Amino acid sequence: MADAWLTTLITTTPQEGFELAIKLARMGVKYTQPSAEVRDKLRKDYAEDAEDLIASSQVIAINFQTVAAANGYWK
Amino acid sequence: MADAWLTTLITTTPQEGFELAIKLARMGVKYTQPSAEVRDKLRKDYAEDAEDLIASSQVIAINFQTVAAANGYWK
Amino acid sequence: MADAWLTTLITTTPQEGFELAIKLARMGVKYTQPSAEVRDKLRKDYAEDAEDLIASSQVIAINFQTVAAANGYWK
Amino acid sequence: MADAWLTTLITTTPQEGFELAIKLARMGVKYTQPSAEVRDKLRKDYAEDAEDLIASSQVIAINFQTVAAANGYWK
Amino acid sequence: MADAWLTTLITTTPQEGFELAIKLARMGVKYTQPSAEVRDKLRKDYAEDAEDLIASSQVIAINFQTVAAANGYWK
Amino acid sequence: MADAWLTTLITTTPQEGFELAIKLARMGVKYTQPSAEVRDKLRKDYAEDAEDLIASSQVIAINFQTVAAANGYWK
Repeated sequence: MADAWLTTLITTTPQEGFELAIKLARMGVKYTQPSAEVRDKLRKDYAEDAEDLIASSQVIAINFQTVAAANGYWK
Repeated sequence: MADAWLTTLITTTPQEGFELAIKLARMGVKYTQPSAEVRDKLRKDYAEDAEDLIASSQVIAINFQTVAAANGYWK
Repeated sequence: MADAWLTTLITTTPQEGFELAIKLARMGVKYTQPSAEVRDKLRKDYAEDAEDLIASSQVIAINFQTVAAANGYWK
Repeated sequence: MADAWLTTLITTTPQEGFELAIKLARMGVKYTQPSAEVRDKLRKDYAEDAEDLIASSQVIAINFQTVAAANGYWK
Repeated sequence: MADAWLTTLITTTPQEGFELAIKLARMGVKYTQPSAEVRDKLRKDYAEDAEDLIASSQVIAINFQTVAAANGYWK
Repeated sequence: MADAWLTTLITTTPQEGFELAIKLARMGVKYTQPSAEVRDKLRKDYAEDAEDLIASSQVIAINFQTVAAANGYWK
């Protein structure tokens, strides 16, 4: 993946950090399945499946731990 | 998501921190499935499914790790 | 949830800390499914399901990480 | 649970620490399903199920993180 | 595995760190299933399965925690 | 388990640390299912199952966090 999409883990607010965690979760999927077409098709499934949504939230939570630590918890 | 919903990880008590962890878990779902109508429909399913409830508690636990660390464990 | 059920993460012994971790795991379920009647019904299922028991133990383990760190590992 | 089964997280060696992590994983199950009879019956199932064994190893790994940190990684 | 494939956890940028986390996730699979032929066959399945993609992203997230900590979060 | 199989978490290189993490993951399985015969039979299943391979990689990742921290990330 040639594009620079992650140059820093530092964000101004916790909310931006949470949104960065979401981006990290999505990039983890994108590197594994590079086809936007396939991902879009799958999104319809998992976005209406409770277990998949909970699992998605879990990946975000793990990435948010990393981003929050990087930012000294925005204290 | 334009609204500011997360301006700090600091809470007065551990219990408020736990409740913030629940909010983070729910926001992880909300960003993935923005439709309140779909989420409400799914809630009926996962709230009566033991595995989904355990998985939900796990996402809360991961987020609580972050919030607790941010608050120096309220010591 | 109006009641104060979590005022500190500090416990006297590691065992009390482990039991607090169990309480945190259960509260994560309770906030998601507030009905005691529904939870009691589900308990019969997951308490006799190996995968659910392992998953429950995992949530306890994650919460115990938090409680143990809060207590400086009772050293 | 009246018995004192966890008075310290400190162990002499990493291996004893790993075995303590196993005990913590099992106690997480035991608190959720107190009946030894039911647990013995379930053990036959999960001990011959690849996914359950991997999940068990994961709970041990999470608890080992806690025990290892408590012991300063036995350095 | 005789080849040296991991000589350092240090990377120049967070993005390179994320890509190292992906490599670690793949190596975890490779050590368990050394056959490239079998892995290629399986990839077709999991790359089009939403749950598998989310699980893959989770393993990357866990490894990224390690790499990010090793790099002092590139601050 | 009488044999001493884990006397230190310290390794010379990150790669040896990763391989130790794999050993920890396997020992977690071995303590739960001591029969080599049963484990060998199960290995054929999970080594050709994408979800099981991803789950195995996750347990390795969690153990690698512990080993990497023990080694100060080999810096």
